[in-house]
Amino acid sequence: MAAYADRAGLRAFVFVPAGKVAAGKLSQSIEYGATVVEIEGNFDDAMRIVRQVAAETDVYLLNSINPFRLEGQKAIAIELLEQFEWEPPSWIALPGGNLGNCSAFGKALREMFDLGFISRMPRLAVIQAEGAAPFYNLFSSPNRSTLEPVPHPATLATAIRIGNPVSWKKALRAIEWTDGVVERVSEQEIADAKAIIGRDGIGCEPASAAALAGVKRLVETGTIEPEESVVVVLTGNLLKDPDYTVGYHAGRLRVGDEADTREVLGRFANRPIRAAADVEVLKRLLSERS
Amino acid sequence: MAAYADRAGLRAFVFVPAGKVAAGKLSQSIEYGATVVEIEGNFDDAMRIVRQVAAETDVYLLNSINPFRLEGQKAIAIELLEQFEWEPPSWIALPGGNLGNCSAFGKALREMFDLGFISRMPRLAVIQAEGAAPFYNLFSSPNRSTLEPVPHPATLATAIRIGNPVSWKKALRAIEWTDGVVERVSEQEIADAKAIIGRDGIGCEPASAAALAGVKRLVETGTIEPEESVVVVLTGNLLKDPDYTVGYHAGRLRVGDEADTREVLGRFANRPIRAAADVEVLKRLLSERS
Repeated sequence: MAAYADRAGLRAFVFVPAGKVAAGKLSQSIEYGATVVEIEGNFDDAMRIVRQVAAETDVYLLNSINPFRLEGQKAIAIELLEQFEWEPPSWIALPGGNLGNCSAFGKALREMFDLGFISRMPRLAVIQAEGAAPFYNLFSSPNRSTLEPVPHPATLATAIRIGNPVSWKKALRAIEWTDGVVERVSEQEIADAKAIIGRDGIGCEPASAAALAGVKRLVETGTIEPEESVVVVLTGNLLKDPDYTVGYHAGRLRVGDEADTREVLGRFANRPIRAAADVEVLKRLLSERS
Repeated sequence: MAAYADRAGLRAFVFVPAGKVAAGKLSQSIEYGATVVEIEGNFDDAMRIVRQVAAETDVYLLNSINPFRLEGQKAIAIELLEQFEWEPPSWIALPGGNLGNCSAFGKALREMFDLGFISRMPRLAVIQAEGAAPFYNLFSSPNRSTLEPVPHPATLATAIRIGNPVSWKKALRAIEWTDGVVERVSEQEIADAKAIIGRDGIGCEPASAAALAGVKRLVETGTIEPEESVVVVLTGNLLKDPDYTVGYHAGRLRVGDEADTREVLGRFANRPIRAAADVEVLKRLLSERS
């Protein structure tokens, strides 16, 4: 948004919850010329303030509450189906925060089905972090009538640290259209899944890893069957949140000279290449530096 | 390297000067499964230790001193020429640190010329930071016989914070083959150029911005003529070093409620979109957090 606004000669404001946005994302908004405004409070506080101010002024709101934004996000699902030659996978798994992606995917799949591009709907699996799981709670409630906000959402996956998702109604409709499910995963499961995605040479931000962690859980509980095909959408690059990775590993191996270096090489040469992250260590390190 | 090694089942070691590598790069190496070893000292100390240890052990060194690495880097220049339909630009500008890119570009251009793909050589412009400019000093010396290392290289552009570049002989040959030049730029010029590249919706790491800053200086001094065409190679993505950008802007605008937010919107709505970074502020903030 910042980059395109600047190209068009428009002023861009980016409102973020103070101290709760990953460094990579912040650096891009700033670098592309946006005026970045930090709002005291969490994502939901920022969302509330921005909605109110946008309603009173001539600021155009481009958060995913804006339906045109969802129209754009639909392209992810449509291109995915195209790459599958319109033979959809059994499941598509997404991380769930503000629920814009879930809403956009639901709309795209429904439209592709109604237009005859696909002959069956893939099932959506939306995965939330345990500490920020209002949509999971709604999905698990008997009548699914009203989303109960989580007042203090807590997860190291900053992109889904959201307690009061604006798109929950559209997202719930998407789940119903696609016979979808909502799952939640722990911080440890997110960190472990992130390590696996990294070891595969791809890498992603923590929120994206939640989707893979959720798939693992859904396979274990029998919701996803062994023969079914699953696409996991990684919504953010590893480089958006380097601190999550570096924080955990900070100061792990340090050498001063050739002798030290030879010793380290010898010591590690035959070890298993890498253990998954210990999320308690990660939490402590990240809280120390923030 | 880390990603490919892991895919091949090989153990990767990444040696870095402790505390002197941008967070994004560090996070990728770690995430892809490499064993990251921090060496006390600067890049040149690390280079010396690693060369010695590699000579004594069965570790295969993949730094740009490895000629196969330069063969790979040649592809940047060859693809560039192909995109220009073999009608080369007047100049190609590159940042200069360990001088692997300069060496690889020189070899690629020479080979493309000798093979008849291009009928004239573009001129190379290699740009160094003032605080780490041994190659500039060599280029400016009367007989260009021996590179004098800079013992304490200093620049916020971590990718070119190198005082004793391993590839200086190959790079000097490349400069001679192409009738090239070497220029140096200040930290302020790097920061200003980085802001311009960001405002263009691209974004890069500081070392890459040095190349644009150098072009500006070469135009001002008349080395590059107004009608000449110039390609600037941006060697690293903005997201490799988010701290450089975020460090400068940290805590700039903070609001607590709707009234604050409206006030900020009003105050900034008609200002020029963004001033270039003040490098003194940047230095102070980065040193405070390191």
